[in-house]
Amino acid sequence: MTNTLKSRQFAAPRLVGTPQLLSRDADTSLVEQIVRSIETRIDDKLLRTGSRMPSIRQYAEFNGVSRFTVVEAYDRLVAKGFLESRRGSGFYVRERSPLITTHQAPQAHQWQPPLIDVVWLVRNMFRQMPNQKKPGTGMLPTEWLDGDLIANALRAISRQNASQLLGYGDPQGFLPLRQQLQLKLAELEIAVTPEQIVTTTGVTQALDIVARHFTQPGDVIFVDDPTWFLMFGSFAALGAKVIGIPRLADGPDIVKLAELAAIHKPKLYVLVSVLHNPTSTSMSAAKAFQTLKIAEEHDFIIVEDDIYCDMHPGSAVQPATRLATLDQLNRVIYLGGFAKTLSANLRVGFIATSHETAQHLADRKMLTTLTTSEIGERVVYKILSEGHYRKHADRLRTKMDIAREKTVRHLVRIGMNVDIAPPAGMFIWVDTGYDTNILAEKAAARGFMLAPGALFSPNQLPSTRMRINVAAMSDPEMWRFLEEECQR
Amino acid sequence: MTNTLKSRQFAAPRLVGTPQLLSRDADTSLVEQIVRSIETRIDDKLLRTGSRMPSIRQYAEFNGVSRFTVVEAYDRLVAKGFLESRRGSGFYVRERSPLITTHQAPQAHQWQPPLIDVVWLVRNMFRQMPNQKKPGTGMLPTEWLDGDLIANALRAISRQNASQLLGYGDPQGFLPLRQQLQLKLAELEIAVTPEQIVTTTGVTQALDIVARHFTQPGDVIFVDDPTWFLMFGSFAALGAKVIGIPRLADGPDIVKLAELAAIHKPKLYVLVSVLHNPTSTSMSAAKAFQTLKIAEEHDFIIVEDDIYCDMHPGSAVQPATRLATLDQLNRVIYLGGFAKTLSANLRVGFIATSHETAQHLADRKMLTTLTTSEIGERVVYKILSEGHYRKHADRLRTKMDIAREKTVRHLVRIGMNVDIAPPAGMFIWVDTGYDTNILAEKAAARGFMLAPGALFSPNQLPSTRMRINVAAMSDPEMWRFLEEECQR
Repeated sequence: MTNTLKSRQFAAPRLVGTPQLLSRDADTSLVEQIVRSIETRIDDKLLRTGSRMPSIRQYAEFNGVSRFTVVEAYDRLVAKGFLESRRGSGFYVRERSPLITTHQAPQAHQWQPPLIDVVWLVRNMFRQMPNQKKPGTGMLPTEWLDGDLIANALRAISRQNASQLLGYGDPQGFLPLRQQLQLKLAELEIAVTPEQIVTTTGVTQALDIVARHFTQPGDVIFVDDPTWFLMFGSFAALGAKVIGIPRLADGPDIVKLAELAAIHKPKLYVLVSVLHNPTSTSMSAAKAFQTLKIAEEHDFIIVEDDIYCDMHPGSAVQPATRLATLDQLNRVIYLGGFAKTLSANLRVGFIATSHETAQHLADRKMLTTLTTSEIGERVVYKILSEGHYRKHADRLRTKMDIAREKTVRHLVRIGMNVDIAPPAGMFIWVDTGYDTNILAEKAAARGFMLAPGALFSPNQLPSTRMRINVAAMSDPEMWRFLEEECQR
Repeated sequence: MTNTLKSRQFAAPRLVGTPQLLSRDADTSLVEQIVRSIETRIDDKLLRTGSRMPSIRQYAEFNGVSRFTVVEAYDRLVAKGFLESRRGSGFYVRERSPLITTHQAPQAHQWQPPLIDVVWLVRNMFRQMPNQKKPGTGMLPTEWLDGDLIANALRAISRQNASQLLGYGDPQGFLPLRQQLQLKLAELEIAVTPEQIVTTTGVTQALDIVARHFTQPGDVIFVDDPTWFLMFGSFAALGAKVIGIPRLADGPDIVKLAELAAIHKPKLYVLVSVLHNPTSTSMSAAKAFQTLKIAEEHDFIIVEDDIYCDMHPGSAVQPATRLATLDQLNRVIYLGGFAKTLSANLRVGFIATSHETAQHLADRKMLTTLTTSEIGERVVYKILSEGHYRKHADRLRTKMDIAREKTVRHLVRIGMNVDIAPPAGMFIWVDTGYDTNILAEKAAARGFMLAPGALFSPNQLPSTRMRINVAAMSDPEMWRFLEEECQR
């Protein structure tokens, strides 16, 4: 395992040089704080196997603690197997073998090399870090969302008959929410009954269940290139082969899609039609039609992830064609959720598909998590059914429009190429002109988290593009950093 | 697929003969009610492909509706593809081909034949049906649980800073809950740090994540025989081979375990040490030690599912040895949760394991559901940390003791063999002397859901045993049924 780590070509940003946040008032001793901090860095791969630790003196001076404290911390880390002491040379991060080595057969970890960078970025997204330090984040700042909406709904639910919350609930999901989703989809001209809908723990579980149901190890799954990178790890873990279809501003590269479909005979093509991540572009009607024709010809299923649905102002305002609208859930499986616009923590997503497939997927869901909690589903139901959601989404879009315009202007001013300027959505897929892996590494050293382009592509090749979140671009220091770097 | 259904050897109970619950006051027309009811039965495999429907006249008379109503309902079902009309012979349940047939390659469904019965029982458990009609249920009646505990905790959470609920939360789970679990495990003499704990969507997701991490298709997983049957479908879906280890009153059949381990070289052995499902027996200290020795010798991991932990009065009162207590999470992965004692709907379970494995499993969790919702985890944290949980569990145990004693006496009186009389827990693994598949089928016709023994065994062979829930034995009609059947 450690070997696969070593052989990685892409270097994840390191935070080795930043000072520790040590507190003399904390409940835990300074020694313990240092031990934990170093352990975390090693576990997060920020300190690599074999790398040399700062000397005891360096560490002590840099962090303003006594050398005795550092000696004790290093000693404990040696005892715990995190570090090793090499006579006359100092302390090194140790190659830690898993506790139960024999069970980690090499083929069980085939999927790890591409995963580890993805995991690095995902872990960083979950790190408690101010939003203006994360231009690469895929989420809106919490200040943009509405905590009171959630709190009020929770309070209302706590006043209902609580015995409803004691059982497992419906394996397909809370029925009133599915009825509400039926109405939501009807507005997108997708006709469904509640029986065709299965709720999930976010779109992530939806993708996992669908991929597990329709693929066997060795099968091919097409994804957009670029796209949401968590899928690479998720699908690779199932033993599927992930192949990227170049995504142009108006949808997939159709010639390439037809060519690759003929060669690889994919089982699934997972795509985002409206406000594609990371480009925030939407598919044209013609491309949607052509994509469906190719899917029919080569007999694969399309999984349409519409998580950014409500960041789009609607097809009356801007063109937006969903494949599910054309196909009516015959060959298209439609996924949606509320993590981006309402709250990620509710973990409410859903699948809409044929009646038959919905039954199979509900069974799959039972085998993996039994049911999903109704609490989050009741919260979403309440906010949707009482009309709050629509108003909230309107406000979000207005705010996003202002931030997007400002960000584009600023990016252009500092010399970046905004050739794909999206009229909606939260992302800009900017071309910096520099290798964004290196840029991200430098940014990390300054305390910022960027999302380098390489991560979004299944082949993970270095890229000059990166994804920028228009709602997380308020820190002047970050702008200064970008300006300096890109004018060198 | 339909072929595999036809070739099944075990006949799931049918409800064909029971009258429909039709309402003239309902919002939906009688025709629609009939259509839906028949659709559900077909989907639930209660009406089998190829079976003949009652004639229009029979159906109308039996349900007290006009023949026109039935004609219209049958016609709609024909149009929807659920039924077919055979000239001069009547209506038949149609063989429904999946919408997307080509993608359902036969090997993708290898796991289905055993699954379908399990799914049948699981689906029935989720059916809204009074608890006294479900002696086979694995849950406590909602009246036994404490809805106010949940409601109060939810209310308190809604008053906290709601912005905490907008982000994804910690991929390992809500930290204060993990700290609380550290204390809980310390009482069982299992030493862990919060970093060694990963929360999950119930024990079900914990099992799924662990199995996915440690096995490849073709690998062998040992389970207790009998055991919680959902695992058969879950593991088979991963392509694992599930083999049962005979479970005796004091733990696994050690000779058999050693023998089978040498032959099959399993990757995992999933077992319940304390209050095993369905026998409610606990493992002896000697058996626990022997099991661990065999695990070491043949180098497999033990997954210890301790979901019934708090139904046990504690090792000071009755012997109870956990393998994790002996092994200290070296070779044992410990699973727990609160679905049985607090609320299934919260979907809060957890994994405790080595620091290294916890990191890997947290990554796996990210790939399948990103995070778990913090709401349920905050609810459990509150109830645990404020001391309510302990008192609630004490009350449950007292109530269960009374119900168990009463149930055992009654079972013996009607001539059933209670050879394994557990001193704690909610199940009795009773020997009826009759094939419980047939008994369950007859009970279903009377509106009761039993849990026949065959379901709990990986080989699914007919059995004279069944699992009885002592908390769901209050219906005199059900006792009359058992008495009649078993004295014939």
